[in-house]
Amino acid sequence: MIYFDNAATTKPSNTAISAFLEASKSYFNPSANYRPSIELKKQLEKARTSVLSSLHGSGKIIFTSSGTEADNQAIFSSIKPNKSKILISAVEHPAVYAPAMELKQKGFEVELISVDGSGKIIEEDLVEKLKSGDVSLVSIMHVNNETGAINDIQKISTIIKNISPKCLFHSDGVQAVGKIDVDLDKLGVDLYSLSAHKFHALRGVGALYLKNGINIHPYLYGGGQEEGLRSSTENCSGIFALSSALEEAVNDLAQNSIKCGEIKTYIKNNLIQICGDDFVILSPENNPFILSFALRKVRGEVMQHALTKYDIFVGTGSACSSQKALKRIPDALGLKEGFRDGLIRLSFSRENTLEESEYFIKQFNLEYNLLSKYYRG
Amino acid sequence: MIYFDNAATTKPSNTAISAFLEASKSYFNPSANYRPSIELKKQLEKARTSVLSSLHGSGKIIFTSSGTEADNQAIFSSIKPNKSKILISAVEHPAVYAPAMELKQKGFEVELISVDGSGKIIEEDLVEKLKSGDVSLVSIMHVNNETGAINDIQKISTIIKNISPKCLFHSDGVQAVGKIDVDLDKLGVDLYSLSAHKFHALRGVGALYLKNGINIHPYLYGGGQEEGLRSSTENCSGIFALSSALEEAVNDLAQNSIKCGEIKTYIKNNLIQICGDDFVILSPENNPFILSFALRKVRGEVMQHALTKYDIFVGTGSACSSQKALKRIPDALGLKEGFRDGLIRLSFSRENTLEESEYFIKQFNLEYNLLSKYYRG
Repeated sequence: MIYFDNAATTKPSNTAISAFLEASKSYFNPSANYRPSIELKKQLEKARTSVLSSLHGSGKIIFTSSGTEADNQAIFSSIKPNKSKILISAVEHPAVYAPAMELKQKGFEVELISVDGSGKIIEEDLVEKLKSGDVSLVSIMHVNNETGAINDIQKISTIIKNISPKCLFHSDGVQAVGKIDVDLDKLGVDLYSLSAHKFHALRGVGALYLKNGINIHPYLYGGGQEEGLRSSTENCSGIFALSSALEEAVNDLAQNSIKCGEIKTYIKNNLIQICGDDFVILSPENNPFILSFALRKVRGEVMQHALTKYDIFVGTGSACSSQKALKRIPDALGLKEGFRDGLIRLSFSRENTLEESEYFIKQFNLEYNLLSKYYRG
Repeated sequence: MIYFDNAATTKPSNTAISAFLEASKSYFNPSANYRPSIELKKQLEKARTSVLSSLHGSGKIIFTSSGTEADNQAIFSSIKPNKSKILISAVEHPAVYAPAMELKQKGFEVELISVDGSGKIIEEDLVEKLKSGDVSLVSIMHVNNETGAINDIQKISTIIKNISPKCLFHSDGVQAVGKIDVDLDKLGVDLYSLSAHKFHALRGVGALYLKNGINIHPYLYGGGQEEGLRSSTENCSGIFALSSALEEAVNDLAQNSIKCGEIKTYIKNNLIQICGDDFVILSPENNPFILSFALRKVRGEVMQHALTKYDIFVGTGSACSSQKALKRIPDALGLKEGFRDGLIRLSFSRENTLEESEYFIKQFNLEYNLLSKYYRG
C-alpha cells in the first residue's frame, strides 16, 4: 500500500501505541484521591509539560478530543458578548469556518481575509479589515490543509497586536505541529490548536494552547477538569500517546522534512513532464509535506479511484470536509475554470519512501494517459 | 489491589483493548473516498447499529468524546431560543448540572427537582414543576452516580409527555449502561447519554442517543461527521472498543448483577455490625453496583486514605466532580448533620470477588476501630 494522504490522518507510531497501552493499564480516574490516580495525574501533568516544551510555549495546554474541538472552543469560547467583528481566512478548515458561520447566523459580523493562489493570506487585506472596525478575534491557520501554504504567523501576530492590541489571535496549527518547527512563544499567538492523529498519534485527542494571561470560557462544562476549562474524565491514554508521538516528531523534524521534500520534488518534476500545460500546482515550494495540484483533463475523483487499483491512496481535498468545502476553497484560491474538478492532494509523512513515489509516478502516468483520452474540453 | 471505585472508571476488558488495537491498524480517515476508508466507515456504522441493538433503541447514536460531551450537547443543543424553563434533578452529575447553571447565568429559568434520601426524584415535585410553566427540557439521570438510586425513567417519560408533550426529556445513563437493562424504546427518552469507560471500554469515548424525530443542533461544528451533528474525525478505535465492550457487558448483565449483589450484601451486613448507629446507608437495595454510606465517627477521606495502605481503593463521592459537588449532593439528599464528612462510595464491577469483600471488611474493621477512637463528636 502507498499512503499519500497523511494530511487526512497518519499511521500511529509504535511509540504512540505503546504509550497508549501502558496508560490503559493505569485505568484509574485521574480525579480520584488515591495513590494510583494521583500518580496518573502526575503523568498527565508531565505530558502537558512535554507538549509545551515540544512547541516552545510558556502558556497553558488544554487537552481536548480533537483539533475540531480545540478550534470550536477557540472560536466559541473567546468571543466577546458584544458581537464585535471576527476575521478568519477564506480557506480555513471547516472546524474554524463552520463555527464562524454559526456565529454569523447568531448576529456576529464575520469577514473572510483573502488569500493568494496558494492559500496564504494577503496581509494587506488583513490590515485593511483590522482597521475597518472593532475586531475581537482573528483566526488564521498556520498551514493550509489543502495546499500546504504556510502563513507567517509571527508577522501576522505583530500586525494584529499593533492595530488591535485587545484582539485575540487564534491559529489552527493542525497541519503544522509535528511537521514544521512550531515555536509558540515566538509566533505570539493567543490560541493555537493541534490534533494528535495528524502526527502519528491516535484519533480522538487534540489540544488547545492558551498564551499566558489569556482567559476563555470552558466549552465542555462538568467536573472541572483541565483547570475548569474542559470538563470530562481525561483521556490519559490518548494524551500520553499524543505527547510521546509529538516528542518523536519534533526530534525528527529536519530529517522528515528532507525526506518528504525529496519525494515531493520527484513527483512534482515528473508530473510536469506527464501533464504539461494541463496541470497547475497549488502548493507552495516551502512545504515538503503537501503537493496539491489540479488536472484539466482528468477529474480528481476519477484519478483517485483509478489509483486505488494499485493500492495507492491519495486525497482529493480535505478528507475531513464535506463536499461544500470543495467549492469554497477553489473559489478562494482563484483556481481557473477547467481545473476545478481536477484537484488532487498528495500528502507525505516519514513513513513514505522515494521508491513509493517512483511507483506512484509509473502508475499515475499509465492512468493519466488512459483517462485523459476521454477529455472532451 | 482491590478496586472498589468502578463508578469512577473501570478496567478496560481484553475485548475492548483488542478492538481498539485492531482498529488502530486501520488508521485511515473514515471520511476519505478510497477503499480502506470506506471499509472503516462501514465498520463504524456496524458499531453504531450494535450500540443501538445493545440498548434496544430505534433512534440514532452520535458518538462523542465522553459522557460529559454527550450531556453538554443534550443540554446546550436542545434548548429553545425563547429561554423557556429547564428542569433537572437536584442530584445530577456536574456534566448536566454545570451546563444547566451556565444556562441559568445566560437568563434561562432552571429549577431543581427534589429527591428523596437515596437520590431518587420525587415524582410529585416533577409534576408540580411541569405544571407551573412552559418547560422545554427535563434532564433526570437514570442511575445516580453517588448513591446508585434508579429513577423510573419510563414512568417519568410518560409523566412529562402527558403534561408537556413538546418538552424534550434527556436522561444521563452513564451509570446505567452496561449495568442494568436499558431499553431505550421502552424508556421513551428523547436523549440519553453514555460513557465508554464506565463499562470496561476506554476513556475518551461516549455517545448521545436521539429518539427518532428529535432534532437538536450540533455542538462541535466542522467537517460534518455524524450526520452533521458532531464534527471531528471519528475516533474509530475508541468507538469499536465501546461497542464491543457494551455487547460484552449486556450479555453478562444478569450474571454480573448477581455477583455484585453478593459482594454488596456481604459488605453491607458487615458494616452494620461494625458501625452500628454511627453509620447510614444512602444507597437503595435495588442497585447491586453501588454502596454509599456515611460514617459519623470517621471522615470519608481519612478512611479512604487508611484503606490505601492495603491497596484498597474506594471513592468518597463522584471522582469526576469538584469539591463543590460534595456539598450540593448531601444537601439534596438531606443527609443528617454529623454524617456529612463521612461519605464513602464503594462501587463494584464483574472484576470484583467475594474474597475481596472479605479482605475489605477485615481491613475496614481494623481501621474503623482505630480511627473512630479519635472521634470527639
